Amino acid sequence: MSADTPDAAALQEEVEQLREQVEELQDGGSNKMTIVATKGTLDMAYPPLILATTAAAFGWDVVVFHTFWALEVLHEERSKDLKLSAVGNPNMPLPNAVAAVPGMDRAATWMMERRIDENNTASVEELLETAFQTGVRMQACQMTMDLLDYEDDDLYDEVEAGVGAATALEHMADSDVQLLV
Amino acid sequence: MSADTPDAAALQEEVEQLREQVEELQDGGSNKMTIVATKGTLDMAYPPLILATTAAAFGWDVVVFHTFWALEVLHEERSKDLKLSAVGNPNMPLPNAVAAVPGMDRAATWMMERRIDENNTASVEELLETAFQTGVRMQACQMTMDLLDYEDDDLYDEVEAGVGAATALEHMADSDVQLLV
Amino acid sequence: MSADTPDAAALQEEVEQLREQVEELQDGGSNKMTIVATKGTLDMAYPPLILATTAAAFGWDVVVFHTFWALEVLHEERSKDLKLSAVGNPNMPLPNAVAAVPGMDRAATWMMERRIDENNTASVEELLETAFQTGVRMQACQMTMDLLDYEDDDLYDEVEAGVGAATALEHMADSDVQLLV
Repeated sequence: MSADTPDAAALQEEVEQLREQVEELQDGGSNKMTIVATKGTLDMAYPPLILATTAAAFGWDVVVFHTFWALEVLHEERSKDLKLSAVGNPNMPLPNAVAAVPGMDRAATWMMERRIDENNTASVEELLETAFQTGVRMQACQMTMDLLDYEDDDLYDEVEAGVGAATALEHMADSDVQLLV
Repeated sequence: MSADTPDAAALQEEVEQLREQVEELQDGGSNKMTIVATKGTLDMAYPPLILATTAAAFGWDVVVFHTFWALEVLHEERSKDLKLSAVGNPNMPLPNAVAAVPGMDRAATWMMERRIDENNTASVEELLETAFQTGVRMQACQMTMDLLDYEDDDLYDEVEAGVGAATALEHMADSDVQLLV
Repeated sequence: MSADTPDAAALQEEVEQLREQVEELQDGGSNKMTIVATKGTLDMAYPPLILATTAAAFGWDVVVFHTFWALEVLHEERSKDLKLSAVGNPNMPLPNAVAAVPGMDRAATWMMERRIDENNTASVEELLETAFQTGVRMQACQMTMDLLDYEDDDLYDEVEAGVGAATALEHMADSDVQLLV
């Protein structure tokens, strides 16, 4: 046998290999998602947590890379006490002059927390626990940890601290879904 | 003929099938986009609407999943009256102490609306109409509808209400482009 | 030779072509990223710049499409002087009533700038220079340039001005990673 006269059996085998690879490409393998989280308010903590835990429940590989204000969500103490802003949010039914009154952020936060409770919506703390239990990889950006003065010890034990933008990009390149919140 | 001695014609057929599948993979089929919209301010209502209607004009399949404050954009009454925040937006040429004065959000909104009008930029209402007409699927998140007290009847008739995060994720996994606003 | 009796050598060649195409699909070719930037505050200018310059350093093709407030980042004068908002950001340790006091945005901005400097974090200006030097394509959205009154001359020379949503969508469809900030 030479390259010019390949035998049909060998060719058959090659074709079968190709078919498997094509099927894997069509299927996309198991789904992967990377979320870049940048927000640390009570409302904006939800989209990454809901999407991550829902995806993990369906067997996806999920990485959430937390940078800037989203580091608050990984902070063991402060994540229990995230706030909503009453000012600068025209979707809240309060004029800014009232919203800026001392205590108004606290009031808006309290209203939202009550609604979360009344609707049996999971709290941030509960969603974090679910994320950790279902294998969502919660990462903290090194550059912004330095910039905003977070220590490893401030964060939940399960957090992968000290991750760089290059690693986050690598995860994104491998992901079917990438989102920045 | 046995598995060990496949005939060339059968092999030929298999190769042709594979070629078609590979071409489809290379081409990516028709484009699909999923946008997760979370904002309900006049300015941030635009990016999802502009991207969705532009994509639909080029024949893309588009889903916009509205959650949190973006539900305002689907609210039949309130979407006509979205506001800009003058406070908390240092890109507006107003110090916060002035911006927090009663009426200032209204003034900033009015300035933006006038600019939109002067530039013949489509209004939110017009873009919504285009979106509905061109088959953009506008979805409303069930969890945040409950949390923020939206009724189905509050929303435009064309809206798919009561959609969950799992469905949104499925759309995203199938999409070429996914964005969160 | 007829279609019914293809010769093995021709088939072999076809299979090899297919293999190459499948390998290219598996590999994904060189990575491409498109970022839609919408924010013009000091903090939110960072995620697009850090991700874009990091990706470019790894040889990715990167496009950043700037729209709405992100046009400030491309403004030759004003990009040197981006501000942080003290109000409406409950992650800053200042009550809104204090934050709204005249000068407080300036104070918050100054604190952040000092931290950036102390941590040897690159400034926005330095990151822009790196982006231009490493071939990141920085684009400005025509519609919002008109709406918010930006002239071509206001922007850095390296900026591609007057780009439309359709072009941005095309880049996104070709990209492995798409993010909206």
